[in-house]
Amino acid sequence: MTVFPQKNGHARPLQFPSNRRLALASNKPPMIAEIIAVGSEMLTPHRQDTNSLYLTQGLNDLGVSVAFKTIVGDNRQHLVDAIRIALRRADIVLLSGGLGPTEDDLTRECAAEALGLELHREPSVLVELQRRFIARRMAMPPNNQRQADVLDGAELLTNKNGSAPGQWLDLSFEGHRKIVILLPGPPKELMPLFDDECVPRLALSLPRRSLAKRLLRMALIPESQVDARTAPIYQQFSDVETTILAGSGEIQLHFLCSKPTMEEAQARVDAVAELVEQEMGDDIFSSHGESLEEVVLLMLGLRGLTLSAAESCTGGLFAERLTRIPNSSRNFAGGVVVYTNAMKTVFADVPAELIAEKGAVSEEVARALAEGIRRRTGSSLGLSITGIAGPPITTGPDAGKPAGLVYIGLADQDDTQVKRLEIAGDRDRVRLWASEHALEMLRRSFQ
Amino acid sequence: MTVFPQKNGHARPLQFPSNRRLALASNKPPMIAEIIAVGSEMLTPHRQDTNSLYLTQGLNDLGVSVAFKTIVGDNRQHLVDAIRIALRRADIVLLSGGLGPTEDDLTRECAAEALGLELHREPSVLVELQRRFIARRMAMPPNNQRQADVLDGAELLTNKNGSAPGQWLDLSFEGHRKIVILLPGPPKELMPLFDDECVPRLALSLPRRSLAKRLLRMALIPESQVDARTAPIYQQFSDVETTILAGSGEIQLHFLCSKPTMEEAQARVDAVAELVEQEMGDDIFSSHGESLEEVVLLMLGLRGLTLSAAESCTGGLFAERLTRIPNSSRNFAGGVVVYTNAMKTVFADVPAELIAEKGAVSEEVARALAEGIRRRTGSSLGLSITGIAGPPITTGPDAGKPAGLVYIGLADQDDTQVKRLEIAGDRDRVRLWASEHALEMLRRSFQ
Repeated sequence: MTVFPQKNGHARPLQFPSNRRLALASNKPPMIAEIIAVGSEMLTPHRQDTNSLYLTQGLNDLGVSVAFKTIVGDNRQHLVDAIRIALRRADIVLLSGGLGPTEDDLTRECAAEALGLELHREPSVLVELQRRFIARRMAMPPNNQRQADVLDGAELLTNKNGSAPGQWLDLSFEGHRKIVILLPGPPKELMPLFDDECVPRLALSLPRRSLAKRLLRMALIPESQVDARTAPIYQQFSDVETTILAGSGEIQLHFLCSKPTMEEAQARVDAVAELVEQEMGDDIFSSHGESLEEVVLLMLGLRGLTLSAAESCTGGLFAERLTRIPNSSRNFAGGVVVYTNAMKTVFADVPAELIAEKGAVSEEVARALAEGIRRRTGSSLGLSITGIAGPPITTGPDAGKPAGLVYIGLADQDDTQVKRLEIAGDRDRVRLWASEHALEMLRRSFQ
Repeated sequence: MTVFPQKNGHARPLQFPSNRRLALASNKPPMIAEIIAVGSEMLTPHRQDTNSLYLTQGLNDLGVSVAFKTIVGDNRQHLVDAIRIALRRADIVLLSGGLGPTEDDLTRECAAEALGLELHREPSVLVELQRRFIARRMAMPPNNQRQADVLDGAELLTNKNGSAPGQWLDLSFEGHRKIVILLPGPPKELMPLFDDECVPRLALSLPRRSLAKRLLRMALIPESQVDARTAPIYQQFSDVETTILAGSGEIQLHFLCSKPTMEEAQARVDAVAELVEQEMGDDIFSSHGESLEEVVLLMLGLRGLTLSAAESCTGGLFAERLTRIPNSSRNFAGGVVVYTNAMKTVFADVPAELIAEKGAVSEEVARALAEGIRRRTGSSLGLSITGIAGPPITTGPDAGKPAGLVYIGLADQDDTQVKRLEIAGDRDRVRLWASEHALEMLRRSFQ
């Protein structure tokens, strides 16, 4: 799970520029963890450690906090030092990567050196490696035998999706109990191995606690407003950890509570969520973490309505977001990407004269598009998005209108509403926010 | 620039599951850097340090390698220790975050403690802070004065987009020269501050070297094949650092060379790129890093062709990808998202009987869709994508066809080609790869 750098054009994650950890749990978990991601590629501008997000989720669910993350290259001295530092400051040290067969794969040797342990070549792993090569009718290169090197005292963790097993050590180091876990780097190997082999072992090793979570989501409200209205509530719950994430028009309120029993923990997160829901009312689109797309499709489904869309500046993004959800075709018929003016006439019967007179980016064309796509498709609802994603248009009737100007139209059998927006930011942001506004306009139309 | 966790539905970066640093530069840069990202939110499953990717790019461009990255929470002892460790193992230490006005913002104090320096409250910064509050007609809370605390001996780095200035220290620490840089956490503040204030200072402080880069891109070829064919070439260039990134159907070959002059460096990366281009031929879609979307639009433009698309399983993703590129409307007219069968008839004249007989996911319907959308829009080319993104369809003529089955049709005035694919993976992957195959099919049709 690696993110391409954004300049490459097609990876466009939501941007979450600001956030705060607003209240910290008063009952500090008893053990802290450090995650060390091993691999020189993660020290380039192109690649990032993302395994740690998955591991952090799993550790948090067990009541373990991650206190440090370190990223280190395929360098013997650097890695040995990083492991030693982690052993000094954390109770649980998870290493991901560096278990492959090449000379660059140093995690086994470096962990042994840092811990003062020996490696032995484990016959059962050698046999399994040989078996994999024979199955592919290949000879095993001598280097691959290194994948059978096991730290003295380590338990092997079965890797269903790769050749290098994980390793688990629960030992006393300089008078302190330390759990050290070696995990393969590829996410497809690491994730199931962590879930199947590490989580049960950690659960047995740690004091028993239950963790309850709730996630409330809101769209298109300023974070400062959410904070001002909800802080007086969540600050009363000192045993609930509250995190606010904000970006791309969405605000998320995460509540987390750890208690000896699940009932106690769930009662606390439900209590704070209920009070926040009372305060924020309709602004909350999701009480249990559903996405805005899911909520809109659910509401269409409950009302037996169908929807179609005519998109200009968003170029298909609105349709693409809805169709990410399986079975969206039950209530979303599809739509048209009427990126040029001619297409608006061809597919949604917008009169060419209207476009010539008012411009494609106008209230009138938004209205005609929404009504046109609804009529053409026979859907219950027609939605339109027309705007200037940027750069500004320099000729014709839209010349002089600002980049970021967007009209959204929503037509039903009785009426058509049009909303005018001026969205700040670059091309990508205007498109993303326009699609968000369209989804939120739909959702609010049901209330 | 933070990535939402994927389960939230709408952040869907390209997945790059495997990669290798294949050849390391033989001329090791003289100084190494550590980047410390400060903030408890980056130790949750929800947020990641991404500033370091930007900083790494800038540092690499100056010939500086990043050897370590550390992520640490808003915890005084943890942060002081992390800074001390970095001072021991790196020449340049960049800290991002923790310069805000709250009690949690500890970077200034912790850097002072780790370095054994005092802080002083800088009057010029105080005046600027006051000015910002007055401009907003607000009283400055006493806490905000902390943002004027400056390390003795530090140069202030102007922050155009926020209240906390950066700080630059070039000092001798335990007998070694160390550059320590304090940067604000929000990317909008950090990026220009780093570019405008840090890069020039670093360039003056470092031995002068020039760095040349080339990026070759290929689509839909196995990484192992690219590696087998290109390794014998790039391994001959021991002074060029080669990185292969692979994922989502794309392979990127990054070449990097650092030399005393730009001419020398450029000559080396061009030499290796030329040999690799000779070997890989048409498989390379981009010789200088352009995206596949850009290449396709450029080729349409050079030939004076227009394109329209009828998408089913990709739900608008193909159109959305093309319309990410500014001015794409010159050659991409738009298209239709014919997610339901009825829409295929309404918008692309696919006979309902054909769908009933062959199924929507069939060679015949792909052909009719491509021809229909071309005819309807009057475009030079019509492209269609119909497939099963998953889950499998259980009723009607498409029942029994496997999830991942996709047909892509491409019609021009003379002929229609249809390509049949079976794409492995989940719904998101099938959609992404189908759109990638469609773009690549278009590109290859021009050759």
